[in-house]
Amino acid sequence: MIRMTRRCHNEQSPEKIELTRRKLLAGAGKLAAGAALATAGGFSLASMASAKSTYPWPHKKIDVQEAGNIAYENWYKDYCCYATVSGVLIPLQKSVGEPYASLPLEAFRFGHGGTVGWGTLCGTLLGGAIAASFVAGKEGEKISNDVIAWYSATELPIYKPANPKATFKHVNKSDSPLCHVSVSKWMEKEGVEFFTPQRKDRCARLSADVAMKTATLLNAWAAGTYKPVHGSQAKTHNRPSQNNCDGCHG
Amino acid sequence: MIRMTRRCHNEQSPEKIELTRRKLLAGAGKLAAGAALATAGGFSLASMASAKSTYPWPHKKIDVQEAGNIAYENWYKDYCCYATVSGVLIPLQKSVGEPYASLPLEAFRFGHGGTVGWGTLCGTLLGGAIAASFVAGKEGEKISNDVIAWYSATELPIYKPANPKATFKHVNKSDSPLCHVSVSKWMEKEGVEFFTPQRKDRCARLSADVAMKTATLLNAWAAGTYKPVHGSQAKTHNRPSQNNCDGCHG
Repeated sequence: MIRMTRRCHNEQSPEKIELTRRKLLAGAGKLAAGAALATAGGFSLASMASAKSTYPWPHKKIDVQEAGNIAYENWYKDYCCYATVSGVLIPLQKSVGEPYASLPLEAFRFGHGGTVGWGTLCGTLLGGAIAASFVAGKEGEKISNDVIAWYSATELPIYKPANPKATFKHVNKSDSPLCHVSVSKWMEKEGVEFFTPQRKDRCARLSADVAMKTATLLNAWAAGTYKPVHGSQAKTHNRPSQNNCDGCHG
Repeated sequence: MIRMTRRCHNEQSPEKIELTRRKLLAGAGKLAAGAALATAGGFSLASMASAKSTYPWPHKKIDVQEAGNIAYENWYKDYCCYATVSGVLIPLQKSVGEPYASLPLEAFRFGHGGTVGWGTLCGTLLGGAIAASFVAGKEGEKISNDVIAWYSATELPIYKPANPKATFKHVNKSDSPLCHVSVSKWMEKEGVEFFTPQRKDRCARLSADVAMKTATLLNAWAAGTYKPVHGSQAKTHNRPSQNNCDGCHG
């Protein structure tokens, strides 16, 4: 489903603009989202829809397996957050084009290790949330809420790479969206340290899992079949919180 | 400092392109970053530099006080993460223009409450990290690392709004980048609940603080005077981690 198409019908009427370098630059961002029309001897815009005003950006059905495969491979390029956001959005860069194509996904590399190594939100969940937000806007928050709840309650990783870069034995349920908690529990179970090929591949596969889950829910949302499952954490706990209170307060 | 300027000198030679709707759309993202040249009766590009290939995006000195003021006001529009990223990037949308101008900052709303209410990374720190990454690329990670260390060790909020929307008595040192820990400690000290005007204004002022700190370090980085201070969390702890181990393991 391409939501932008419908929205463009409501845009402003055609407008003749003079092509100067300054105006071209100023308007380029608006052109980026499409719906521009060139005419002979001049330059007119049937409608101008900027990457900003068309937000959230158009959705086309994402190949879920492709999302997972991209995420797995891209973990080895720039880690978990970049891996996951690129797993969901690279298929849209290819199928939709702009504005996705101009978004530098490397900008989300910083989310690795729970944001530059501080062990907070798992970078896969951050990457998934960023992607869901660009595609679904505020609705993306419901999707991310469900993805985080699913991640916390599921034995991961599930994804099996066709050509694994390392192998390991264990999966684990984190009971938490925190990188530190999630990876520490798994490392203890597997009996390996953080800077090992096994741990790296575990996180690469987790990136694939979250990209695939996010893509699946985004596809359902676009098809009109998505129903949010998980309730509000802040309302439930009367403050922002995870659910594993005993992990720190027990 | 505008880094893009130097980069543009190395771009490809002028290229004549036919203006069709399809090509215009395909090229629009590239135009967005600028360096385009229009000629009479045609359309040529002196150089094409996409928002993607010019990443990280150009920096111009950010008015630190303006960053804080925007962040404070914008908290009341879309909460902490949006507030902070917009505090840093709206000044650049105004002074630099594209590609910043086309980035829909509302896409980062989801970071509120430690990402959709899960209490993980404080949304102000997420917003600051996103902004630092667009402006400084991988160098932005060092800045974010320092901002997070500073946040955890500093009595906050510091920012004083000209027209406060609520007043309160206490500041606090979180000893953690987690929303849940940071806000819970402050709420206990102040004696208020989460859904109160006082707590909201505390988080709005915190957004201003983090936007101002991030803008200050980005300005220093662009001026060549920034020196990273804080070391690697993952290397120090042999895994991603905060520093307040006793908070959960004590």
